[in-house]
Amino acid sequence: MRKKLWLIVALILCAGAAFAQDEVSVAEVVELVMVDEEYTIRDALTMVWLFLGAALVFIMQAGFALVEAGLTRAKNAGNIIMKNLMDFCFGAVVYWALGWGFMYGADALGGLIGTSDFFKGPMGDPAFYRDWFFQVVFAATAATIVSGAMAERTQFKSYLIYTCFISAFIYPISGHWIWGGGWLANLGFHDFAGSTVVHSVGGWAALMGAAVLGPRIGKYVKGKDGGISVKAYPGHNIVFAALGVFLLWFGWYGFNGASTLDGASPDIARVCVTTTLAASTGAIGALLTSWIWFKKPDVSMTLNGALAGLVAITAPCGVVSPGASIAIGILGGVLVALSVEFIDKVLKIDDPVGASSVHLVCGIFGTLAVGIWGNVEGVAVGVLHGGGFRQLGVQALGVLAVGAWAAATSLILFLILKATTGLRVSHKEELIGLDLSEHKSEAYTGFQIFSNL
Amino acid sequence: MRKKLWLIVALILCAGAAFAQDEVSVAEVVELVMVDEEYTIRDALTMVWLFLGAALVFIMQAGFALVEAGLTRAKNAGNIIMKNLMDFCFGAVVYWALGWGFMYGADALGGLIGTSDFFKGPMGDPAFYRDWFFQVVFAATAATIVSGAMAERTQFKSYLIYTCFISAFIYPISGHWIWGGGWLANLGFHDFAGSTVVHSVGGWAALMGAAVLGPRIGKYVKGKDGGISVKAYPGHNIVFAALGVFLLWFGWYGFNGASTLDGASPDIARVCVTTTLAASTGAIGALLTSWIWFKKPDVSMTLNGALAGLVAITAPCGVVSPGASIAIGILGGVLVALSVEFIDKVLKIDDPVGASSVHLVCGIFGTLAVGIWGNVEGVAVGVLHGGGFRQLGVQALGVLAVGAWAAATSLILFLILKATTGLRVSHKEELIGLDLSEHKSEAYTGFQIFSNL
Amino acid sequence: MRKKLWLIVALILCAGAAFAQDEVSVAEVVELVMVDEEYTIRDALTMVWLFLGAALVFIMQAGFALVEAGLTRAKNAGNIIMKNLMDFCFGAVVYWALGWGFMYGADALGGLIGTSDFFKGPMGDPAFYRDWFFQVVFAATAATIVSGAMAERTQFKSYLIYTCFISAFIYPISGHWIWGGGWLANLGFHDFAGSTVVHSVGGWAALMGAAVLGPRIGKYVKGKDGGISVKAYPGHNIVFAALGVFLLWFGWYGFNGASTLDGASPDIARVCVTTTLAASTGAIGALLTSWIWFKKPDVSMTLNGALAGLVAITAPCGVVSPGASIAIGILGGVLVALSVEFIDKVLKIDDPVGASSVHLVCGIFGTLAVGIWGNVEGVAVGVLHGGGFRQLGVQALGVLAVGAWAAATSLILFLILKATTGLRVSHKEELIGLDLSEHKSEAYTGFQIFSNL
Repeated sequence: MRKKLWLIVALILCAGAAFAQDEVSVAEVVELVMVDEEYTIRDALTMVWLFLGAALVFIMQAGFALVEAGLTRAKNAGNIIMKNLMDFCFGAVVYWALGWGFMYGADALGGLIGTSDFFKGPMGDPAFYRDWFFQVVFAATAATIVSGAMAERTQFKSYLIYTCFISAFIYPISGHWIWGGGWLANLGFHDFAGSTVVHSVGGWAALMGAAVLGPRIGKYVKGKDGGISVKAYPGHNIVFAALGVFLLWFGWYGFNGASTLDGASPDIARVCVTTTLAASTGAIGALLTSWIWFKKPDVSMTLNGALAGLVAITAPCGVVSPGASIAIGILGGVLVALSVEFIDKVLKIDDPVGASSVHLVCGIFGTLAVGIWGNVEGVAVGVLHGGGFRQLGVQALGVLAVGAWAAATSLILFLILKATTGLRVSHKEELIGLDLSEHKSEAYTGFQIFSNL
Repeated sequence: MRKKLWLIVALILCAGAAFAQDEVSVAEVVELVMVDEEYTIRDALTMVWLFLGAALVFIMQAGFALVEAGLTRAKNAGNIIMKNLMDFCFGAVVYWALGWGFMYGADALGGLIGTSDFFKGPMGDPAFYRDWFFQVVFAATAATIVSGAMAERTQFKSYLIYTCFISAFIYPISGHWIWGGGWLANLGFHDFAGSTVVHSVGGWAALMGAAVLGPRIGKYVKGKDGGISVKAYPGHNIVFAALGVFLLWFGWYGFNGASTLDGASPDIARVCVTTTLAASTGAIGALLTSWIWFKKPDVSMTLNGALAGLVAITAPCGVVSPGASIAIGILGGVLVALSVEFIDKVLKIDDPVGASSVHLVCGIFGTLAVGIWGNVEGVAVGVLHGGGFRQLGVQALGVLAVGAWAAATSLILFLILKATTGLRVSHKEELIGLDLSEHKSEAYTGFQIFSNL
Repeated sequence: MRKKLWLIVALILCAGAAFAQDEVSVAEVVELVMVDEEYTIRDALTMVWLFLGAALVFIMQAGFALVEAGLTRAKNAGNIIMKNLMDFCFGAVVYWALGWGFMYGADALGGLIGTSDFFKGPMGDPAFYRDWFFQVVFAATAATIVSGAMAERTQFKSYLIYTCFISAFIYPISGHWIWGGGWLANLGFHDFAGSTVVHSVGGWAALMGAAVLGPRIGKYVKGKDGGISVKAYPGHNIVFAALGVFLLWFGWYGFNGASTLDGASPDIARVCVTTTLAASTGAIGALLTSWIWFKKPDVSMTLNGALAGLVAITAPCGVVSPGASIAIGILGGVLVALSVEFIDKVLKIDDPVGASSVHLVCGIFGTLAVGIWGNVEGVAVGVLHGGGFRQLGVQALGVLAVGAWAAATSLILFLILKATTGLRVSHKEELIGLDLSEHKSEAYTGFQIFSNL
């Protein structure tokens, strides 16, 4: 009892410490806001634009939570939404304390890392606040991708540790290379809204996490003839998954649209058209692939197809034509369907919701698409526009470099977690379900009757 | 196997074709954006306004999916969300290829049809992109209304064919008459955000579809005495339906508000008040009608009442007073309750979610309301303002003309589909449910125990 | 039959009366809009900003409905969403007729009450319409807080009467004191977005309602030894609750952000950062408290923690630093966890969703936080900034005065309802569930198998 009280007291002291960190500067901050006469109506429009765009990106967290809960089993639903909620919450705090500084701080080591502006509260001018808000929702997106691939078997505690690391270090450092004025930016690498910066970083961590964890119990079973049979675990609520996809698509308009970073940019118009067409054709591509290949218009594959189109158009959405966005969408939809099969059946890595196929494979494809179909600032850099192979080469270099960074750091992180705190719940806990074993509660009390075992 | 591969290859070639269609013009597009010096801050505000408004209208797709899934049975939930998703996806592609051209292309035949700007990618100036994005979400709304009325018994394949036709031809052509500068526009027909253009067009197609399909098995059963007993099939998740209504109402603020088409219009203010009051009083009207008439404050009827108020205020929202919007809302709510009874019990057309009552009946009422309570651009045109009957006559003419067009074309389309590919699933498939029979999967695997049969 | 018809006719006459109320002035209204040449681009930006902000606040209604439905039992889900929907619908009408006038009408009695602008339709200039829309969604938020605390046992009819009173009288009158230029505003009381104006008013009514109603059947049972055992009734769908929290958080960006009331305010930037950090740390604070105190990372407590952080930052979000917002969030999260325990186990008031802990306790804390950490318009008024105790004293005075008003009026209202129409359903109706007993329908027909009894 006394120990508990001390822990609560410690929690309250933490609160005080956070405040003490930046309290001296509050008066100064307010002054900065007040005396600023340079705040034009265009700045005001950009403020409103980025604020609303960031709010749209925020609701993508609900989308991820619903997709992941819907595509997995009822006995883990509460755990999944906790992971999706808490990766935002912890991510926001560490991105405020550390992540922003590594990503957008003063450059060091020749474009490798940012090194200032940690605990950035004290500076406090409106443009910083605005940009931090717009960036933190992107950081949280990268982090939350992973929870789906690691669903139904990961310890809650270890997931929280992982999520602090990706938001504080892994995501910001490769992000610095591209959006923070680092070495890839200097080479002309183009990633408008984050096919690589956000999605493939999250996708690599997802793939590494799923591989290190191993498959769910019963997923791959060795038969008497030595062959391995692959069991599917269909999700418990496809309507949740669909609502999640609609919310993700809705939020993606903020993700891509507001990445113009300027409320007065006419490019917003192009972005909305290419995003809409690529998402639509992504769903169509996956629908038709599943219909032709598996002889059925598969629901969850089609939902993933819409996301695949969205991930693929994220890098090139500002620099390609509507026709190209249709091509990118269809190819993304085909790719995701084939990739889900490949990772599940050939690589035998158990990614319950297909997160690595959606975010990693289509993130890479979308990044390369800039070098195939792109016109960056009026220059036809895409191979298909006769722009040669330079841009495609730079895009490929970025894919490889960021991939090496994200895969290596997340692999090391998961291996360390596995060796220390442990990464996976026990056999019995997994069978019972993480809701009961990790949180001592059920998601659907009195509303479900099947056995958890 | 080889055949499958060829089909996938064909799919990929389609992607290439879409791109080839407009690739030559990309450089030109970018140039257009760059050289434009006439892009004022007011244009920028309108861009942001229409972009965010369109995003709000997009989330209405999730609203429709949830209302329709919630108000029908669990065995068809996956199928319903697939129809709601894919009518947007296919609709976006065909509206890009054909629909926009028929609706907003250069007028021909004296206001009957647009005839240019197909595959409009090549032109590519920001204002076009912006307007296309804002219009495509309206086209998708009209298409998706139909899925509810045809729920639980329509073939997926045939639904996809229907949805391409309504988005490519039916909706754009009558839309041209009103919003594309066609003959009804020239007569002074007023439909601010689409009670007729969107809702009654969708509503007519819904009614025709439900009539051609026939009722669900067991819906109308002949008794021994020769009388027909009407069975109700309550929806499986009223919380989904309610969330759908909230999302629709939320999105409707974009639907009506952004239909000012000008971010600097002070009319936005009036629209938000009339929309809020009509939706509220629509729910109140339906609640009280169900309470008085059926002796219970019926949940699904009240939900439909909110939608009824929204549909009814869609045409007049910019030209009526708050008091008039309350009148319109209450009457819409009363109307929808009586209409649901009439269509179900008297006409014996099986519309599982009441889509034709909400969108057709209240769409017509809202269109006429302009002629009853309206002040268009400072002129009191409403009968109740002493404006005479001219406006009401024009509104009625529009209702009749658009009704004849939409009812006839959709009836022909559904009859052709019935005679060729088939419109309805087999008796056995319907009993099993469309999720298993059409998509080989369940919406709630491991989470529901009742028999599908 | 004839009686029914008369009632429907009466309903329709009501509609006419609402219109007649303001019909004469419509032409004048339109003229006002047209002739206004003073409508600047900054006004236009503010219009768009407040419109979109209000739409975001509107979607919080869906968030409340989902949190409350998710955290209670399936047999009452339809009733809960009806209460959440109808308190907005009736609230909007009475706030149009009466509430706005009491809150923002010409001041009377030395800052105690507004007394003009009832049925404010006739005045009709755009700025009024805009402001009414932005305010009505706040009024509805205060009203809807109560439904959670009174869930699972309140008569639907009586709830509707209550909700009209809070939106017409209770909320607007104390609101006038603070936001309507009344006596607390004159003293310098600061409540940026409504920790007191909205949340603690709703929270007091929630606590009074739950106390007057008494606990749900079986909640507190006297044992043989004379001790009382407290039974928990876990909610039936934690995913709904989580989605509700995400939607509330999303909408809160409009709630706090747009409370700048000026689209050109650079303060928007600060608000978005403090809101994000406080919500995040609120969830963290409640998570860790439940983990330390109850030995489990509790899902519903964590969800309430995010809301606690949001409620607490609502008053100070524009006048504190990011570090202070972290402190406020953590403390809000700790507070809500302890308060839920205290109200349930010590006070033995049955608040099924913890509404009074979230909105009342954290609303009070957030209001006081202005006096602890605040810098209002460049002046360091917070105790921790050496601003002395004046601001804290004024904040405390406001908390007491508004608390006395809201608690007393809602207590009297609930006691009168209890003595006249009755407040609570019968023992049998409560066991059956309010969906069947009040609305004659189930929320999950064919989709749930447990007995209601």
